[in-house]
Amino acid sequence: MPLPTIEWLGGIEGCVRLIDQTLLPTEFRQIECHSIEAMWEAIKVLRVRGAPAIGIAAAFGTILGIQSSRAAKYDEFRRALEKAADCLATSRPTAVNLFWALERMKRVADENRLMTIPLLKERLLDEALAICEEDKAVCRAIGRHGADLIPDGGGVLTHCNAGGLATADYGTALAVMFAAHEQGKRFRVFADETRPLLQGARLTAWELMQAGIDVTVICDSMAAAVMRQGKVDLVVVGADRIAANGDTANKIGTYAVAILAKEHGIPFYVAAPASTFDLSLPEGEGIPIEERKAEEVTCGFGRRTAPEGVKVFNPAFDVTPARYIAGIVTERGIISPVGDAAIRAMLR
Amino acid sequence: MPLPTIEWLGGIEGCVRLIDQTLLPTEFRQIECHSIEAMWEAIKVLRVRGAPAIGIAAAFGTILGIQSSRAAKYDEFRRALEKAADCLATSRPTAVNLFWALERMKRVADENRLMTIPLLKERLLDEALAICEEDKAVCRAIGRHGADLIPDGGGVLTHCNAGGLATADYGTALAVMFAAHEQGKRFRVFADETRPLLQGARLTAWELMQAGIDVTVICDSMAAAVMRQGKVDLVVVGADRIAANGDTANKIGTYAVAILAKEHGIPFYVAAPASTFDLSLPEGEGIPIEERKAEEVTCGFGRRTAPEGVKVFNPAFDVTPARYIAGIVTERGIISPVGDAAIRAMLR
Repeated sequence: MPLPTIEWLGGIEGCVRLIDQTLLPTEFRQIECHSIEAMWEAIKVLRVRGAPAIGIAAAFGTILGIQSSRAAKYDEFRRALEKAADCLATSRPTAVNLFWALERMKRVADENRLMTIPLLKERLLDEALAICEEDKAVCRAIGRHGADLIPDGGGVLTHCNAGGLATADYGTALAVMFAAHEQGKRFRVFADETRPLLQGARLTAWELMQAGIDVTVICDSMAAAVMRQGKVDLVVVGADRIAANGDTANKIGTYAVAILAKEHGIPFYVAAPASTFDLSLPEGEGIPIEERKAEEVTCGFGRRTAPEGVKVFNPAFDVTPARYIAGIVTERGIISPVGDAAIRAMLR
Repeated sequence: MPLPTIEWLGGIEGCVRLIDQTLLPTEFRQIECHSIEAMWEAIKVLRVRGAPAIGIAAAFGTILGIQSSRAAKYDEFRRALEKAADCLATSRPTAVNLFWALERMKRVADENRLMTIPLLKERLLDEALAICEEDKAVCRAIGRHGADLIPDGGGVLTHCNAGGLATADYGTALAVMFAAHEQGKRFRVFADETRPLLQGARLTAWELMQAGIDVTVICDSMAAAVMRQGKVDLVVVGADRIAANGDTANKIGTYAVAILAKEHGIPFYVAAPASTFDLSLPEGEGIPIEERKAEEVTCGFGRRTAPEGVKVFNPAFDVTPARYIAGIVTERGIISPVGDAAIRAMLR
């Protein structure tokens, strides 16, 4: 990334600066969020998106929510923190990293309840900054562990964007490709455009081109044809929430790609940090799936493309059962085969 | 259809009137084609599309190509006819109905070579009009044969548009739905939007809404999620060319839908007239697949949605192997199971 996907500017009275991803690839613009409401809106409309980046945004958003608190005592401050977290928790329901980051911020507050409020605020900002910095290291480690999966001269297919724009830096699924590229491997990437919001065409293609990686954009409906032509050696995607058994929620269309990969004998990998696992859910059934507004489907690009008043179903995610997943690339190593025991062992 | 998809206006000096489908659903406009060049362009840019409608357009286009011929003798006239057919044959390569219609027009000329040229022109116009009229009857018959496939209270998924707009009237895959609806059955249709040109969102949704059939538009990437929810009892799609063994070329994405249907235990049907079969090809491998320009993918909706200069793969069709197809609904009955012998027997 030429500039950070998301960063904190200044001290405790500072603000969040992020790349407005709704404008890419035709316009590169950074915006500043000076209030929790602005942060909430940026998450909601996908100015910042991608599970790890949403976690960072939530941590920074918490700071925006409490920075001007005049609470003198912990209990009052803690209520303000809870209110900020509750607000951010309503922005998007599926990516667990958001809730993971909010819980982490609240836990740090509770662990430091004896601090003065000004010091506690500083401590929370340090924690949010740590979440952001840790994500960078985590993504590099995912890349290191996953790079060997890509054969020299091979083909990789990915869906949506799990790149530097979805994280603090470097990405998860794309980290695997960046790392293989840095090793000198040559390979070709097929990027599903990823309707309705085209994160694949707009963001993944942009990131890979910037890195000098050979990328071809296809419509989601073309993945099967490309696989049948023998051009895909593996699929790698990111994740928004992974249940204890390995069932994986990711951008709508991922489940279809997993089925197509199975039918063509192509291994299907997920790349995600430990913070994406939700061990409180035994399986994917319990993952809440966000439904978004019809207009994303019916008039997403400045022109109406479906009849007025038509019914639309617009789930933002689907769940790929663990049995379709050859392995999950984490910062600690690759979980393969995927199952409860192997996941618990890796995350322990 | 409130007005004909395509029709001939006037006598031998007349012209073709058609609904400009590139403008639907936001604008309903009929245009007139007064030259073979205009007809070629209308086919090329999909003002008229759908395999049976392309066949009719080719037949009418032939008339536009020869109507002003001053040939006095058959050989000279036949060369003009050949030239017209050769021109139209370059418009789109995959739908075999186009070539079928051109061959039929040439055969009629050869069978009537002793006629005076003015009479022969009239005979050819009669043939083109017959192709159009026959298509209407064929579509009704497809609807009659296929209607029983739809269970009352069930769910149907379709891809692209194989409706009245893809034929003279009534459609092929949609004919099955129209006929079931006329029988009083209630059912729900999921229409894949069908990237890149959105024939499902723009045309299928529009036709089904006009008929009062419950239709929900989804992105192509959502079909698997809808199937997994148990909402789809069968898939019905059209076809652009069917090889002797039943392998079926249809709009890009159809092959993926067939795989997804198989994985969910949902029967996958093709609905197409006899004119869509190409018995000269033993299997689908030989079907020429049109590749279209990158801009359909990168800036299809009035706004650029992928980086400048990015590579794009944009095949307009894919081939679904016969083993995925539960049955092919033709005007003569349903071919099931699908295979060489059953196809030959039905078409005999």
